[in-house]
Amino acid sequence: MTGTNRVKLKPGDTIGILGGGQLGRMLAMAAARLGLRCQVFSPDPDSPAFDVVLNATCAEYADVEALELFAGDVDVITYEFENVPSAAAMVLDARRPVLPNRKILETTQDRLAEKDFVTRLGIGTAAYADVTSVASLREAILRIGLPAVLKTRRFGYDGKGQAIIRDGDDIAKVWTSLGTKSAILEAFVPFEREISVIAARAADGQVECFDVTENEHRDHILKISRAPAPIPDDLAEEALRIAGQIATALDYVGVLAVEMFVLANGTGPKVLVNEIAPRVHNSGHWTLDGASVSQFEQHIRAIAGWPLGKPVRHGEVTMTNLIGDEITRYEEWLTVPGATVHIYGKGTPKPGRKMGHVTEVIRPNGK
Amino acid sequence: MTGTNRVKLKPGDTIGILGGGQLGRMLAMAAARLGLRCQVFSPDPDSPAFDVVLNATCAEYADVEALELFAGDVDVITYEFENVPSAAAMVLDARRPVLPNRKILETTQDRLAEKDFVTRLGIGTAAYADVTSVASLREAILRIGLPAVLKTRRFGYDGKGQAIIRDGDDIAKVWTSLGTKSAILEAFVPFEREISVIAARAADGQVECFDVTENEHRDHILKISRAPAPIPDDLAEEALRIAGQIATALDYVGVLAVEMFVLANGTGPKVLVNEIAPRVHNSGHWTLDGASVSQFEQHIRAIAGWPLGKPVRHGEVTMTNLIGDEITRYEEWLTVPGATVHIYGKGTPKPGRKMGHVTEVIRPNGK
Repeated sequence: MTGTNRVKLKPGDTIGILGGGQLGRMLAMAAARLGLRCQVFSPDPDSPAFDVVLNATCAEYADVEALELFAGDVDVITYEFENVPSAAAMVLDARRPVLPNRKILETTQDRLAEKDFVTRLGIGTAAYADVTSVASLREAILRIGLPAVLKTRRFGYDGKGQAIIRDGDDIAKVWTSLGTKSAILEAFVPFEREISVIAARAADGQVECFDVTENEHRDHILKISRAPAPIPDDLAEEALRIAGQIATALDYVGVLAVEMFVLANGTGPKVLVNEIAPRVHNSGHWTLDGASVSQFEQHIRAIAGWPLGKPVRHGEVTMTNLIGDEITRYEEWLTVPGATVHIYGKGTPKPGRKMGHVTEVIRPNGK
Repeated sequence: MTGTNRVKLKPGDTIGILGGGQLGRMLAMAAARLGLRCQVFSPDPDSPAFDVVLNATCAEYADVEALELFAGDVDVITYEFENVPSAAAMVLDARRPVLPNRKILETTQDRLAEKDFVTRLGIGTAAYADVTSVASLREAILRIGLPAVLKTRRFGYDGKGQAIIRDGDDIAKVWTSLGTKSAILEAFVPFEREISVIAARAADGQVECFDVTENEHRDHILKISRAPAPIPDDLAEEALRIAGQIATALDYVGVLAVEMFVLANGTGPKVLVNEIAPRVHNSGHWTLDGASVSQFEQHIRAIAGWPLGKPVRHGEVTMTNLIGDEITRYEEWLTVPGATVHIYGKGTPKPGRKMGHVTEVIRPNGK
């Protein structure tokens, strides 16, 4: 039994959350429902998560003293984003259990390490190659073909830090514009649809997955999720199996999301892993209103050392992100029968910024 | 258009909540989901609602300076309990809109005024009489008969401040033990079941009721609520109509609960009003997980000047209160498939204290 396996909170104990965005906010609200307190650490004084906790720490992730004080205030520490600086994670980990384990971040912060990890598990991914120079990019293109996607190995999100390369593109120019020496080239996958699985794993190895979700992106940003995904049962089982296998192989404690592609016709694998997010995930927001236990609550239960829930879905669920100016139309959503509206308290809308979301549950048998 | 009708909050605005118990806590969490901030005012430093808001005011309700500062911090004020001291309400009302209107408290804080109000609307109640002395108690008994229930006019809850009088009881002794000169005698109603309606009313007059709930009490404390109540449609419609009529007659803004008795066979009215609670109510807790919009959110929307939601129920819902030591068994509830567990963060359990609740949703068509 490791140290982290021994975490066992009781109501009234305090969870430290790194990151003050909407994910941290919804984690804190899920914890509150279970009688657990949260303290949020974020460098941004306008952090939406600050609004829902009594104690907040506004400091930089490089501020060792602030990190130490924060650790002293809490019983266990978790995070809402995968790009936690490893130095900060080390400082915290020396003082309090950090869950999921910070070593997992080393795998999931790096697209190459992540792909290698998935491949070693015998799980399919798009063909990929390590790229460190324009020369190695040309080699990779020869092997993988075009079109292909060039991505920074680290710190990409919502389509940032990536470029599609097509026949005839100026390879040297694309390479320069990415502005890194550490990239990965991925084959362009002719997918039929994008899906994800939100899996929760407890310290004792129990795994509970939510139903497979179908995701629609616009401009590289998630726009709509639907659960259950309209895919055949065997594909859904395969996707759930993959997510469970990954969570177990990482000895993961908490919630993770595995984004996958479903391929159209073909003879190879039908499901390819695209990305692992070691945290609660936008494609799991439907669970807040569409299931008896949400992804946020499962994460809190796992890191608290509590048993995972057995979520029951309330019907066919659709989650729509309110992005940028779309939030200004919240009043229209408020009156849609059966709709549940979430506004993240983020202040001024900016293009591409996730400002809120709406969940709609449709009972297959009518009302 | 009155002053209170002009309240129109925008995301980021702040709601002041008087009272820091579980109702205030759940109101604050509902507001947070809509991007609204809350500040809680409570004299109890251990108030559970303090945990879920960034700003809390810990002061006595008689502390005029604290009330004024609090009012200055918020955009609208509401309360989680009906026994708000009228002096405090006046101080606040002079500075910010207080919703529901404080004049409503004058009716609902007094069982006699409340019964008179309901009767004037032509709605049935148990027979009742004003009692101010042992002599008037004897007169009232002659008129109403026994058994009957003697209640203080003010500040009773969960069976406190009341006594059943049966044939042969020592009337003078019962009167003395109640310790008041301001009481009401109510006929004992041979009810078949207890129900309640949670009604929300917006400033523009829109009324939205949740489905009628059946309530089971143990030791005068709500133990289980079930929605929808298993009663004939015409009775349910009558109950909903009564709740709407009361909300409208009070020019109410916010959520109120109307507790009613359903009578067994007889020729008179089949539904009698027992009590009005000018606030969110324990019998509406099922709406948090059993409907697309909860009673807490409806209340917040109403006092924010936002349109009410059109709640859709997710199935047949049961809410079970966790009272006193029952909270210690929360881990058993955590693993019940489909159950949603709420722990109020109240610290040490005391007998009769509401510590949490569990919601279970059953889809009539199976899973």
